[in-house]
Amino acid sequence: MRTRAAVAVAPGKPLEIMEVNLDGPKAGEVLVEIKATGICHTDEFTLSGADPEGIFPAILGHEGAGVVIEVGEGVTTLKPGDHVIPLYTPECRECPSCLSRKTNLCTAIRATQGQGLMPDGTTRFSMLDGTPIYHYMGCSTFANHTVLPEIALAKVDPSAPFDKICYIGCGVTTGIGAVLNTAQVEIGAKAVVFGLGGIGLNVIQGLKMAGADMIIGVDLNNDKKEWGERFGMTHFVNPKEIEGSVVNHIVEMTKTPFDRIGGADYSFDCTGNVKVMRDALECTHRGWGVSVVIGVAPAGAEIQTRPFQLVTGRVWKGTAFGGARGRTDVPKIVDWYMSGKIEIDPMITHTLTLDEINKGFDLMHAGKSIRAVVVF
Amino acid sequence: MRTRAAVAVAPGKPLEIMEVNLDGPKAGEVLVEIKATGICHTDEFTLSGADPEGIFPAILGHEGAGVVIEVGEGVTTLKPGDHVIPLYTPECRECPSCLSRKTNLCTAIRATQGQGLMPDGTTRFSMLDGTPIYHYMGCSTFANHTVLPEIALAKVDPSAPFDKICYIGCGVTTGIGAVLNTAQVEIGAKAVVFGLGGIGLNVIQGLKMAGADMIIGVDLNNDKKEWGERFGMTHFVNPKEIEGSVVNHIVEMTKTPFDRIGGADYSFDCTGNVKVMRDALECTHRGWGVSVVIGVAPAGAEIQTRPFQLVTGRVWKGTAFGGARGRTDVPKIVDWYMSGKIEIDPMITHTLTLDEINKGFDLMHAGKSIRAVVVF
Ligand SMILES: [Zn+2]
Ligand SMILES: [Zn+2]
Ligand SMILES: [Zn+2]
Ligand SMILES: [Zn+2]
Repeated sequence: MRTRAAVAVAPGKPLEIMEVNLDGPKAGEVLVEIKATGICHTDEFTLSGADPEGIFPAILGHEGAGVVIEVGEGVTTLKPGDHVIPLYTPECRECPSCLSRKTNLCTAIRATQGQGLMPDGTTRFSMLDGTPIYHYMGCSTFANHTVLPEIALAKVDPSAPFDKICYIGCGVTTGIGAVLNTAQVEIGAKAVVFGLGGIGLNVIQGLKMAGADMIIGVDLNNDKKEWGERFGMTHFVNPKEIEGSVVNHIVEMTKTPFDRIGGADYSFDCTGNVKVMRDALECTHRGWGVSVVIGVAPAGAEIQTRPFQLVTGRVWKGTAFGGARGRTDVPKIVDWYMSGKIEIDPMITHTLTLDEINKGFDLMHAGKSIRAVVVF
Repeated sequence: MRTRAAVAVAPGKPLEIMEVNLDGPKAGEVLVEIKATGICHTDEFTLSGADPEGIFPAILGHEGAGVVIEVGEGVTTLKPGDHVIPLYTPECRECPSCLSRKTNLCTAIRATQGQGLMPDGTTRFSMLDGTPIYHYMGCSTFANHTVLPEIALAKVDPSAPFDKICYIGCGVTTGIGAVLNTAQVEIGAKAVVFGLGGIGLNVIQGLKMAGADMIIGVDLNNDKKEWGERFGMTHFVNPKEIEGSVVNHIVEMTKTPFDRIGGADYSFDCTGNVKVMRDALECTHRGWGVSVVIGVAPAGAEIQTRPFQLVTGRVWKGTAFGGARGRTDVPKIVDWYMSGKIEIDPMITHTLTLDEINKGFDLMHAGKSIRAVVVF
């Protein structure tokens, strides 16, 4: 069949909207009609050429929602008409990772996915002249139709709106999951969130769900204060507007008459800046502070600290897709959205057509959008 | 009163054995007759002058065992005749740390202890000419008698031999506790121990207790192979004798027919070398590997890695005194020794008199001792 897609033809170039060929689903695969897709910093990272593992030409996009059109041989858990969210972290429930009970990082199709290929080592997309077009993060949601492995699709409530729940395919789950799955924040905790973009706001609403007492947001942009408060932030810090280091500032803020040591119980880096990751670790409480790296650092950048920070009880960890097991957890998060337990609508600041997709990247560069969504 | 002690008069100089003045216990303090004390790398670190927080003149030593001689006003949990192990990490059971249920790093007397003082801001020791002599790690066990706060003494089985259980005051508890309290290793785990000195051997026996399947020891000295095996090590790696990096080597060793990713479930750095700490993190398993820093790094040294290591599920943490709450856990470890659950005797390779104490440092420098103990 043919479908319309925004194709990343080369690094640093705008996406090109075109008709492409799409082969039907092979065994274990599913053809999905994408109804909406978010535009994420990770797409921008790859499109810019900064991603050393970027492959071109490719169909980017990994925050989608849509409807199953056709299933390949042996597919048992999905049928045409099911509403689904594509998963860049699949959940096969059979690999050592899925069976470990310790991680969400399913490895069933990791090797081929990293090469822009389907599990059988080929692509389903091609240019009209036959040139193969690579898949991206196993999803390629910047196309009106795409093919995914069955294990990379979460079946969700069919009454949920595509143009909102597509964001659950990345930022919402990453932010909320970092709090609930990775940090396992408890009621009454004091937490700090560095970077109040889309991920940071979702961390904040995760902290609110988890019952944190202090939710401190840190951002260089004062416009983010209102955004943070909208989702449950209790304190705002602009590092440019304080005296001394942000680490000391947070340690002071978190002291109590009883606890004169100070420090956050939990911190979250949503910036991708390795210096901020260090601050995030070091502002946590001696003895038990846990710092979670969420942001993606530039290629080659390294985090650094004195080992004394760890020996005195701080824990440095990270999260990918919020530690969520996609097929199991994503449908639950959709239900939380439908029942009002979490909010998404205010974060979807812009809605575009596929033809306008490059405008979504411009809005991101200008810092004007939390999330721009393309609706097909 | 007067007592005999080995005094660190200045950095880089041998200890001087001399008579010193010792004031009796003030309120909340206890006078202890030290019966035996280990000589540890931490004492050597301070004596050498490399410790930026070293204070002189001081009475070093922090691995002691002895008998209570006299208690100060208000002391309720100890009485003359009790057998005790001094605790450089006290347990007050009242401070925010002790009450957190998350850390053993009691802060009740941290500030004065770091300055070589008793909690009231003075010293109990002085030279015969009246010059104050500083305390060390709140213990000062290189003296036949010493004074400690009640909260810094663990009361232990009076039938346990002083010249063995003194080692529980540091290395034994640190190594075993890192496994049981900090890493919480589960039965069937694969673990790697970097550095097979005293701490490393105690990590190994902790791993054996915890039921680990693979206990890989890493050391540059082949003589350590026999030592490791003595305590439960199942595999030995000498990084000088393998091709390629130690990280890849361990990843390969830990692969199974089912798990083709490989990596240790847990790793422990017992070297204090920040490059080794990085290897220890990076050789752990994607998705769930936990690496624990135990070794003390040189002043100013920093650990470093790509945040990708954390984002893909590895956890970097550290431990001090093995996460043990001294008054609660040390008596249990003494019981484990008495019941044969753990071994200490083979690790005490040398027994010396106080007059021979500098020989203990020579043995350490020459790599000839696991632990030298001074018996009074
Ligand atoms: Zn994304
Ligand atoms: Zn899997
Ligand atoms: Zn020691
Ligand atoms: Zn305490």
